[in-house]
Amino acid sequence: MRVYSTQKDSLSDILARKYSETADVSAVVKKIISRVQSDGDQALYQLIKEIDHVELASLAVSQSEIAQALKAVSPELLQVMEQAKENILSFHKKQVRQGFISTEPNGVVMGQRILPLACVGVYVPGGTAAYPSTVLMDVLPAKIAGVKKIVMITPTDKKGNVPAAILAAASIAGVDEIYKVGGAHGVAALAYGTETIPKVDKIVGPGNIYVATAKKMVYGEVDIDMIAGPSDVLIVADKSANPRWLAADLLAQAEHDTLAQAILVTTEEALIEQVQAELAQQLAELPRKKIAEAAIESTGKIILVEDLTEAISIANQIAPEHLELSVAEPFALLGKVENAGSVFLGHHTPEVLGDYFAGPNHTLPTDGTARFYSPLSVDDFVKKSSYLYYTQEAMNEVASGVELFAETEDLVGHARSMKVRRERKK
Amino acid sequence: MRVYSTQKDSLSDILARKYSETADVSAVVKKIISRVQSDGDQALYQLIKEIDHVELASLAVSQSEIAQALKAVSPELLQVMEQAKENILSFHKKQVRQGFISTEPNGVVMGQRILPLACVGVYVPGGTAAYPSTVLMDVLPAKIAGVKKIVMITPTDKKGNVPAAILAAASIAGVDEIYKVGGAHGVAALAYGTETIPKVDKIVGPGNIYVATAKKMVYGEVDIDMIAGPSDVLIVADKSANPRWLAADLLAQAEHDTLAQAILVTTEEALIEQVQAELAQQLAELPRKKIAEAAIESTGKIILVEDLTEAISIANQIAPEHLELSVAEPFALLGKVENAGSVFLGHHTPEVLGDYFAGPNHTLPTDGTARFYSPLSVDDFVKKSSYLYYTQEAMNEVASGVELFAETEDLVGHARSMKVRRERKK
Repeated sequence: MRVYSTQKDSLSDILARKYSETADVSAVVKKIISRVQSDGDQALYQLIKEIDHVELASLAVSQSEIAQALKAVSPELLQVMEQAKENILSFHKKQVRQGFISTEPNGVVMGQRILPLACVGVYVPGGTAAYPSTVLMDVLPAKIAGVKKIVMITPTDKKGNVPAAILAAASIAGVDEIYKVGGAHGVAALAYGTETIPKVDKIVGPGNIYVATAKKMVYGEVDIDMIAGPSDVLIVADKSANPRWLAADLLAQAEHDTLAQAILVTTEEALIEQVQAELAQQLAELPRKKIAEAAIESTGKIILVEDLTEAISIANQIAPEHLELSVAEPFALLGKVENAGSVFLGHHTPEVLGDYFAGPNHTLPTDGTARFYSPLSVDDFVKKSSYLYYTQEAMNEVASGVELFAETEDLVGHARSMKVRRERKK
Repeated sequence: MRVYSTQKDSLSDILARKYSETADVSAVVKKIISRVQSDGDQALYQLIKEIDHVELASLAVSQSEIAQALKAVSPELLQVMEQAKENILSFHKKQVRQGFISTEPNGVVMGQRILPLACVGVYVPGGTAAYPSTVLMDVLPAKIAGVKKIVMITPTDKKGNVPAAILAAASIAGVDEIYKVGGAHGVAALAYGTETIPKVDKIVGPGNIYVATAKKMVYGEVDIDMIAGPSDVLIVADKSANPRWLAADLLAQAEHDTLAQAILVTTEEALIEQVQAELAQQLAELPRKKIAEAAIESTGKIILVEDLTEAISIANQIAPEHLELSVAEPFALLGKVENAGSVFLGHHTPEVLGDYFAGPNHTLPTDGTARFYSPLSVDDFVKKSSYLYYTQEAMNEVASGVELFAETEDLVGHARSMKVRRERKK
């Protein structure tokens, strides 16, 4: 990993992102969306053939496929998924909000209601990024929110099958309908609806550049969770940190994707060499060595800092998706953290605990967007609606001021909407 | 207004939206954004000259301009704006959320923090849509959230001036910086920053098709509130409703914009003719007659229904921005309303009360997006960040299950991040 030091390098060099040159896929995605909009299911079958090279007999995953999948996965995996489900439910139930009401002595009533979205689409990637943990993380908050219909879409393998672990996770999470389609065509189907696939209110879940581009294009027609990029971790380590554990955590991030970013920020110069040595050793044994090595080489960074305050300042500027505080007193730093999707405190809380099991969501803002995006939560599956009630007397009391305000904005019709109600007094 | 009946017309005819043909402005907006990205302030001055035909000496609104504005507006208007401010603050303070913590007997700690966005941009349209009420509605929730820097942008008149009422509202609301730029170029400046204008974390506020397109394009680089379309109202009226008041409320909506939509849904056939007569009479006296008439003609609708249950069902399918329940027992219908930005209950609560004064936000989801978007709120100006802490013992307890889960996903590096920590036990 390339080593930087806040004493020797400029902050702009340290913070520079090596942006991946992504081809502009807009034109392709636009065409795909418009085909799905005009030809519905027929376009889907054709696009699945053209793009995914799969001939499907049916878009829908059948009940018998789900039953088979539940038999195909090991009882041990089912058990750990059930445990993870309980932890995720327990954490996300704490996010549930109530509406409020405000009642005034003069009879005015106002407030805000919180209502579940009616129908949500969950995108689950296929291939090497087909993660059952993502199914649990993206579906369970919607269940808690009270979403009536949860529709999952996911691409299949070349034989038209969805991995058993994905279907098992969907069954455990309580998905209502599953369809065998991914990519921009899958996103378009959820956004506009087809004969088979219902139009949803919101699309959540990660995907490749085609999926991300399609989500951005249909944003406004439906809501989306966020625009997701490659995953990243930033580890802050002091001298209490274990270099072997640090290297393992950096590699756990790097093995995701050649664009995944792993950053170590440390106060200890001595730690740097130890971590580099551990990286080399652990990399050699890693099945996904090629991916992890490419990621470490291209986007990995070790940043030497003066103290932990500077470390957190750099973390806040990078706004990592995952922030590990591998320091002796992690809770003392938490209040300084301004921008991070999820924070992992201490030496015994590797990100992996959060990826699978602990409870907080693993669908998190990437690529510096923790400045403004949040972890996926129950909030993503509700909408708010405000309400207001005035009595005649309360309205009369404020009418002249409101009319003046409206007239200032040259909206005489607005003022009249008050005035006609006051005529009655005559 | 065109009259429909659920007994005679098909639901699809009744619900059909007459979409305005909007020219595809994407190419133009894309070019504007890229100019601002590469040339910063210089591009802004040039674009303001080219597009707005204004030659500005400075982008920033000066303190003396604000002081002059506060003198230029009437004390009565200042007073009503201060009263509106108090009402808006009082309502939005009820939206403030606390983070949470969950502590387990085995030492595990996890939770969610709520943090203000650091810097927010508020777009305020110019020309006939320059509304000081929007300044209050969009800025005050950000103040409550604790946003450190609130940057407002707004186009000027041909002389390079911002209307006094807008500056006065900005001063009352507590805006930190104001810049004289609007359109796609203004949005680009907020998204990428220039020498003068800071890069923000989120852009909120309504605007024309260029602004909406630019907001969608920069979405992901920064967050945005929503994609706003023309304003709309749907009024549900029973026989207790006053046709004169209904017509006034429909016209208050219609005077906004030729694309604004005003819909009346009623159980009373007799009411329809009375409302049409009132519309004709009141239109004749309206300063914005041309705009309102065009809106009423093109998008206005009166829908006759069998009963109030059917009325609300239609409202839920249309998902109006504003829903007036001009019925004898409005609270009895509230629980049936699933999709509406803001609900106005009873005969004495015209939408106008909410537009200016009462407290709930007037920046609301338009164009049927109340299915998934919410009124602007304090939530729009915060982000969430989760945190997790495990002890060594607690980690050891769950490690084997987590490792199994990771290995199922072929993420051996993830499993190793747990395993290296367990080596210590030997």
